[in-house]
Amino acid sequence: MTTPPITDQPKLARTLTRDLGQFEGQTVKLQGFVHARRDLGGVQFVVLRDKSGVAQCVGSGLHLPLPESSVEITGTVKAHPKAPGGFEVQIGELRVLSAATQAAPVEIPKMEWNVNPETMLDYRYVSVRGLRERAALRVQGEIVQTFHTYLRAQGFTEISTPKIVSAGAEGGANLFKLDYFGEQAYLAQSPQLYKQIMVGVFERVYEVAPVYRAEEHATSRHLNEYLSLDVEMGFIEDEEDVMELENGLMAAIMAHLKEACAAEFELLGASIPAVPARIPRITLMEARQLVTEKFGHHVGGKDLDPEAERLLCQHYAETEGSDFVFVTKYPRAARPFYTHADHNPDGSLNPDFTRGFDLLFRGIEITSGGQRIHDHAMLMDSIRAYKMNPEAMVGYSEVFKYGMPPHGGFAIGAERLTAKLLGISNVRYARAFPRDRHRLTP
Amino acid sequence: MTTPPITDQPKLARTLTRDLGQFEGQTVKLQGFVHARRDLGGVQFVVLRDKSGVAQCVGSGLHLPLPESSVEITGTVKAHPKAPGGFEVQIGELRVLSAATQAAPVEIPKMEWNVNPETMLDYRYVSVRGLRERAALRVQGEIVQTFHTYLRAQGFTEISTPKIVSAGAEGGANLFKLDYFGEQAYLAQSPQLYKQIMVGVFERVYEVAPVYRAEEHATSRHLNEYLSLDVEMGFIEDEEDVMELENGLMAAIMAHLKEACAAEFELLGASIPAVPARIPRITLMEARQLVTEKFGHHVGGKDLDPEAERLLCQHYAETEGSDFVFVTKYPRAARPFYTHADHNPDGSLNPDFTRGFDLLFRGIEITSGGQRIHDHAMLMDSIRAYKMNPEAMVGYSEVFKYGMPPHGGFAIGAERLTAKLLGISNVRYARAFPRDRHRLTP
Repeated sequence: MTTPPITDQPKLARTLTRDLGQFEGQTVKLQGFVHARRDLGGVQFVVLRDKSGVAQCVGSGLHLPLPESSVEITGTVKAHPKAPGGFEVQIGELRVLSAATQAAPVEIPKMEWNVNPETMLDYRYVSVRGLRERAALRVQGEIVQTFHTYLRAQGFTEISTPKIVSAGAEGGANLFKLDYFGEQAYLAQSPQLYKQIMVGVFERVYEVAPVYRAEEHATSRHLNEYLSLDVEMGFIEDEEDVMELENGLMAAIMAHLKEACAAEFELLGASIPAVPARIPRITLMEARQLVTEKFGHHVGGKDLDPEAERLLCQHYAETEGSDFVFVTKYPRAARPFYTHADHNPDGSLNPDFTRGFDLLFRGIEITSGGQRIHDHAMLMDSIRAYKMNPEAMVGYSEVFKYGMPPHGGFAIGAERLTAKLLGISNVRYARAFPRDRHRLTP
Repeated sequence: MTTPPITDQPKLARTLTRDLGQFEGQTVKLQGFVHARRDLGGVQFVVLRDKSGVAQCVGSGLHLPLPESSVEITGTVKAHPKAPGGFEVQIGELRVLSAATQAAPVEIPKMEWNVNPETMLDYRYVSVRGLRERAALRVQGEIVQTFHTYLRAQGFTEISTPKIVSAGAEGGANLFKLDYFGEQAYLAQSPQLYKQIMVGVFERVYEVAPVYRAEEHATSRHLNEYLSLDVEMGFIEDEEDVMELENGLMAAIMAHLKEACAAEFELLGASIPAVPARIPRITLMEARQLVTEKFGHHVGGKDLDPEAERLLCQHYAETEGSDFVFVTKYPRAARPFYTHADHNPDGSLNPDFTRGFDLLFRGIEITSGGQRIHDHAMLMDSIRAYKMNPEAMVGYSEVFKYGMPPHGGFAIGAERLTAKLLGISNVRYARAFPRDRHRLTP
C-alpha cells in the first residue's frame, strides 16, 4: 500500500471587504481589524475593518478578541440585505494575528460623536484608524498624487531642498532655531529661494515637503508644521501664466478626486467643487470695494481680513457659481520683498502694487503666489525699500546676478486645502500627527 | 485712403533645443541661458542652454551678454553637421530677458575638469546649472517618481509624518536638538514609528521626505540631511514579502530610467543595471564566511564592513551577473530594537537573529529593511534586552497595544542610490543643496 503524496492546499488569496459581493457563496479570507464586536450568546458578530471598508461577519462558539485586534477571518459570503454592502461572511475560522492587549482609549466606531477633538489628537496613534480620519488623509494623499501627475505632465521636475537653512526666506520672524554643529540654523519656512535657483536648472520645478512656522497660533487654520506643495516656473510672461497653471491644477485635482475618492466624500458629507475653465480674477483693491459696497464690510490694513475673504467667495459663488476666486495685484506692503512690481498700462513700473495673487476657495485663502523679481538691481531696490539689511540678504540676492529668467510660482498648504474641501473645522484634523503650540506628540 | 487694420502677429511658440531638427528651414523661438559665447569679430556664436539640452546659434552685429544671462533667440534652423544635434540657429533677434551682472564664479561649461568639488558646492546656486549636475538631479527626480507610481500601483497610500519629534526612533544619539516653544524637541532621523502606526490605517504606506542625522560624518556616503524613501506594509507573512516588493520596485525604477533618462546616463558615462527577477539572497553569517573563504577578508563585529560589502557584490556580479544582493537574517545586535526575531525551523523564536535585511548594490548598502515586531509583549522584551528604559519608550510601545498586524518595510536613501547608480564619488554631489558638518549654505 502506497502513501498518498502530501499535497499543499493552494493558499487562499486575501479578499478586500469592498469586493465581497463578487464572491457570493464562496469561501474568502479577510484580513483586518476588529472594528466592533457583539456577543449574543449563541451567535457572535464581528465587524472587520480593512483599508477598503468594513464587513459584517457572524459565527458561533468564538472567542472574540478585543476591538482593534488584527485578525484573519475565513468564511462563506452570503447575501444579507441589512449588512453593510449587502453581504456578510459566515465565519469558518477566526485567527488572531495580533491581539489588542487593552481596550482602546477612544472607541473607534463611536468616536465621531463621543469624543472631545483634543482627546482624539492625544490618542491620534489609535484614533487615526477611524473611518472619517482615514478618509480625510486618503483624500490628502490623492491631492498630493495629482499634484505630482499634473505637474509632470506639464514638464515639471521634482526637487528636494534643505529644510535646515541659515536664514529665513521671508525674514527672521517665526523661525524655529536649531544648533547645527555649533552654528545657528533654522527650519525653513518655505523653499522659496531654492525653488527659484532650480528654475535656473530645470525651468519648471516643484517640491512636496514640510515647512515650519514658529508662530504661537491659536487659529483653526494654521499649523506649526505643514505639508507645502510648492511650484515655480521660468520664462513666463507675467503672473497670469502662473494663475493659468494653478487653474489647471485645481481642475485636475477635483477631477481626480471625483474619480478616486467618491466614497470618502460621501462618508464625510462633502461635495467636490466644479472648477471654472477660467477662475474669476479680481484685484485686491476692487475686492475691498466690492465687499464694502455689497456687504457693508469695511476692511482696514493692506490685505483682506478673514470675513472679507468669506464675503468675496460668497459673492462669486452667488454670481458666477464659482467656489474659487483669484485676488490679484496685492499692494507691495502686503507681499514679501521678492514679489515683482506691477506695471502701469504704459509699461512703466508701478512700485505700489505687485504681481502677487492669492487663490481663495470657499471663503479662505488656500494659496499664495505671484511673479518674483528676477532682476538683481530691482531686487536690491526692493530690499532697501523693505528696510531690510542688504548685507544680511546677500545669500538670497547673490543668486540673481546670474541671469534668472522671468519666473513665478505658488504654494499650497495641503492640510488647509484638504480641510476646506472636506468641511473639516480645524486644519489640525487634516494632518495625521499635527504639531501645534502645545502638541509635540504623538 | 483707409488705414489697414492693425493685426496682431500670431505669437511664435517656444521651441526646445532638443526639437530643433523638426524645424529645419523654419523660424523658431528659443529661450534659455547663455551657456557659452564667442565673438570672432564679424560673426558671433552663442551656445544656448535650455532644460532639454544646448543649441549653437550664430549671428552678427550682436551685443553678446555675459554667460548665464537668460535670453530669447529668434532665428532660422539650418542643418549643420558640426553643431550639437546637427542643427544650428541663424540668429534673427537676440533678446536679453535678464542679463547676468557679473561673470559666474565657476565657468559652467568647463567646471567638470577645472573646479575643485568643494568650490562647486560653495557656489552651488550657479554650479547646479551644469549639465552633469542637473543630469544627476533629474535622474533622482525620476527615481522618486517611479517610487510614487510603482507603490501606488501596488495599493500604497502616501503619508506625511512629523519631522519635529519628541524622541528618536533608533535611540537618542545623532539627533539635532530644537527648542519647541520651550520644550526639547528633535529632528526625526526616520519616520519609523509613524509609518508603522499608519499601517494600522492604510495597511500599505509610503513617504518621501527628508530625515536628519546629527553625525559628524567624514565619509563619502553620509549626509546630515537626506531624502528618505520609506515603505511599510502590513499583513505580511514575513520579511520575504518585503524583499519581493523591493525587488519589484528596483526593477520598475531601472526600467523607467532606461526609458526616461538615457541621455543623462550617456552624458554621465553610467550604465543602468539589470535587476534579476529574483535578486540573490544570502544570510549575513554565510556572507561573512564567503568573503573570508573566497577573498581572505575577515570581518569583525556584527555587520559587514564596507570592504566586505564590496567583495560580496563582486562575487554576485561575477557568479550571477547581479548588481544587487540581499543580505538577510542580521544578528539582533546589528539591528534596532524593533526588528522582529527570526524563527527556528520548528517555529520557535530564535532571539539571536532577526528578520532584518539590507540590499547591497554595486558594493554598497542602499537600503535597510526588515519585519518589525508587532506584538506588544515581544516589543517590551526587546526593549529590555537592548537595555533601553521601558518608561522612556512608552511613546513608541503604547502603539502596539492595539492589534498591530505583522508588518515590515524598508527605507532607501535617494542620494546614495543616485550616486551609486551614476558613479558619483560623493553622495553630497547627488543632492542639490547638501548639508554636511561644515556646510549650511547655500
